[in-house]
Amino acid sequence: MFDTNSERVPGRAILPDVVLDGMVAILGDRFSTSVAVCEQHGHDESYHATLPPDGVAFVRSTEEVAAVVRLCAAHRVPMIPFGAGTSLEGGVAALRGGIAIDLTGMNQVVRFSAEDLDITVQAGVTRKQLNDHIRNDGLFFPIDPGADATLGGMASTRASGTNAVRYGTMRENVLGLTVVLADGRVIHTGGRARKSAAGYDLTRLLVGSEGTLGIITEVTLRLHGLPEAISAAVCPFDDIRGAVDTVIATIQMGVPVARIELLDALTIKAVNAYSKLDHAEVPTLFFEFHGTEAGVVEQAGIVETLAVENGGRGFLWATRPEDRTRLWQARHDAYYASIALRPGCRGWPTDICVPISRLADCIVETHGDLAGSRLMAPLVGHVGDGNFHLTFVVDPADPQDLAEADRLNRRLVARALAMGGTCTGEHGIGSGKIAFLEAEHGEAVDVMRAIKRALDPDDLLNPGKVFRR
Amino acid sequence: MFDTNSERVPGRAILPDVVLDGMVAILGDRFSTSVAVCEQHGHDESYHATLPPDGVAFVRSTEEVAAVVRLCAAHRVPMIPFGAGTSLEGGVAALRGGIAIDLTGMNQVVRFSAEDLDITVQAGVTRKQLNDHIRNDGLFFPIDPGADATLGGMASTRASGTNAVRYGTMRENVLGLTVVLADGRVIHTGGRARKSAAGYDLTRLLVGSEGTLGIITEVTLRLHGLPEAISAAVCPFDDIRGAVDTVIATIQMGVPVARIELLDALTIKAVNAYSKLDHAEVPTLFFEFHGTEAGVVEQAGIVETLAVENGGRGFLWATRPEDRTRLWQARHDAYYASIALRPGCRGWPTDICVPISRLADCIVETHGDLAGSRLMAPLVGHVGDGNFHLTFVVDPADPQDLAEADRLNRRLVARALAMGGTCTGEHGIGSGKIAFLEAEHGEAVDVMRAIKRALDPDDLLNPGKVFRR
Repeated sequence: MFDTNSERVPGRAILPDVVLDGMVAILGDRFSTSVAVCEQHGHDESYHATLPPDGVAFVRSTEEVAAVVRLCAAHRVPMIPFGAGTSLEGGVAALRGGIAIDLTGMNQVVRFSAEDLDITVQAGVTRKQLNDHIRNDGLFFPIDPGADATLGGMASTRASGTNAVRYGTMRENVLGLTVVLADGRVIHTGGRARKSAAGYDLTRLLVGSEGTLGIITEVTLRLHGLPEAISAAVCPFDDIRGAVDTVIATIQMGVPVARIELLDALTIKAVNAYSKLDHAEVPTLFFEFHGTEAGVVEQAGIVETLAVENGGRGFLWATRPEDRTRLWQARHDAYYASIALRPGCRGWPTDICVPISRLADCIVETHGDLAGSRLMAPLVGHVGDGNFHLTFVVDPADPQDLAEADRLNRRLVARALAMGGTCTGEHGIGSGKIAFLEAEHGEAVDVMRAIKRALDPDDLLNPGKVFRR
Repeated sequence: MFDTNSERVPGRAILPDVVLDGMVAILGDRFSTSVAVCEQHGHDESYHATLPPDGVAFVRSTEEVAAVVRLCAAHRVPMIPFGAGTSLEGGVAALRGGIAIDLTGMNQVVRFSAEDLDITVQAGVTRKQLNDHIRNDGLFFPIDPGADATLGGMASTRASGTNAVRYGTMRENVLGLTVVLADGRVIHTGGRARKSAAGYDLTRLLVGSEGTLGIITEVTLRLHGLPEAISAAVCPFDDIRGAVDTVIATIQMGVPVARIELLDALTIKAVNAYSKLDHAEVPTLFFEFHGTEAGVVEQAGIVETLAVENGGRGFLWATRPEDRTRLWQARHDAYYASIALRPGCRGWPTDICVPISRLADCIVETHGDLAGSRLMAPLVGHVGDGNFHLTFVVDPADPQDLAEADRLNRRLVARALAMGGTCTGEHGIGSGKIAFLEAEHGEAVDVMRAIKRALDPDDLLNPGKVFRR
């Protein structure tokens, strides 16, 4: 039996021979214990410490995943599903060693029905690959975390992004899953019907479970028609409260805006430098409108009026597709731009979400905290949902940096919870926010634990994440 | 201990004295074992046989529910949550006796935030009561099963209705729940943030769990702004395929229609008689469009063109609010109108949902089945979702009627599953569709069972529903 309590030497395989031999029997040279490969699978894109697995299984089918899981389960080896590695709360670190199951080789489209606006893809397909596949049929998939994440990873972390205010998150856009359970059984959840009242909603239980209840190998997704017309605009504001009040009014009026993103002055400065742009370095909203030609004009007119009433300096339009692409690429690169503000440092990203009526207070109070801090922390937000992020730019080797980020993060989360919000809108719990889950959900966390024990009694699937047992 | 295997005498209390005394201590005269009260709590609105509980607890608070549950759990007495009693698959029948927990006295609004478009209500608030409460703030709650169901019941069965094509179902519109677990613990799931990645999605696990995992006592709901403009229209078709093809084209084009309902010729005949209307007795679509003044005109224009291309006879408009109300009331009364086609009979309602591209084939093949049957079965559908219902009008005392309805129902479900659909779009499993759940979900039903065992190890919450243990 694999001893999960033994002292681990990072990067050095301490897997028993029966497991090593078994993995090679299943995968041949697609199983690796090389130090470099293990290191690369031991961290995400955040400041969290690298904790490499003891081996990496590069799988190509649900059957291979099931065989790997059966072998690991038999020998009590922890398993960590791995996609693009772009998570932000330490979700892939091998806290107790074990084997990373890399699903990026499962990158095939299984089935596509343009007329039903749905598709089934293997878990390793990325969001950009997906959109390339369906664009010629006039369709798109709206969920867009900044990185080019895999659909399996996006489902596992309940990802969202800039379009969620209009199109929802992975919660609303995953119709069904193929999942390998902790004992190697394969189940199919949900289905292709747009709605169903048939039994427990296992799909949504698994979406956001961060690999702790099963390993997602296929995802059936709801697609959306490319809108007839798209327009995008940028609106700078003299102060951040005016920008946020514009957002609140837009949401309360029910304008079906597709994207409404806030970048604070520091983020604009970072983005200008990183993406070679020349936005005014003041709080700024980025908008996108989807609809018919007439509908887009109507929506934009309403929102521009609201912006001007709240101190906006007027809309700057990005009408050509290449200008829009440049605009949103800069927005998606905001995380990397933020980190680049302080060369050699890494990002400690955090995100919270509050009811929209509290958003302005939450942001203004948070800026107050930051004004007195030694750390830079650019703020960006999917503000139409009441969701925003800070990226503390830290030197991971400097304990004072880490302590200060931790202090600010605790204050931010406490503020969000006091306002009726959540400790994470879209990044997930991973290992980074475990302390906050209980504060937010109280005794309900015991119910989560009971479900975990029922489905993974030996705690082998991504152990140590989401909550402590 | 309460013996769940003893021979039950319907309506006669066989609860042990310690439970009877305990219930009176908690509720006083709000606990009843009268035959009439128990009978009334032993059936829903369908053909399913009445199986009365042995007592009914009329609760007024979450704390009272928790006290009742602790008492029942200590003596292993089954508990059946009861709302408006308008379910359709036998969900409230006391298959193993026990106590019905009637939540209709919990009819208070707990908290309302117009600016956040959300509200928390006790589980016994009905959808009409809710809409009356929020209308003056320019808001509405779109989920509308035909009956004036309670929000707790609607959450438990994952209800939807005519607006789901645009606004989603209870799955999308419940933000959080207060739930009493099988051991009497109280948890709060979800929250008021529009999105969250904090832990397992217990809210959506409980939505649709039909009272088998916990008793919902409070529901936090997402509300929607009343649209600036609403228009409704009726469009008769010469044949049903033309009507369904119009629906398919509308959905595939992404027109954000708010309601798109199909009534077949027999349903129109029933509705005309029941609601004193004079629609042409042919397959007919009922539409409603929500948006700005210009947006509604634009949507309606697109859909009318599609309808005419598919053999529609043109739109008849219901522009005045009272005409729209009359139209939709008639649609909501279609179930009762159907039953009235054959006096003295009851309805055996069934509903399935398929991917939209298969909807026309599914309906036409189903009509083929019905053409050769002795039973009348009007067909209505929330066809924008690919969802439709049949109501077999049966004499529950006639075994031939029941056998024929059963045969047709099996064929319908098998057809839907073969087309990639579900055995129930919105009515739930209850006891009526247990046989089909395994056919649809296979080994995933074992996962549902494992969750049930983890949260209700003694099988006391609405036992015998959704699946067999």
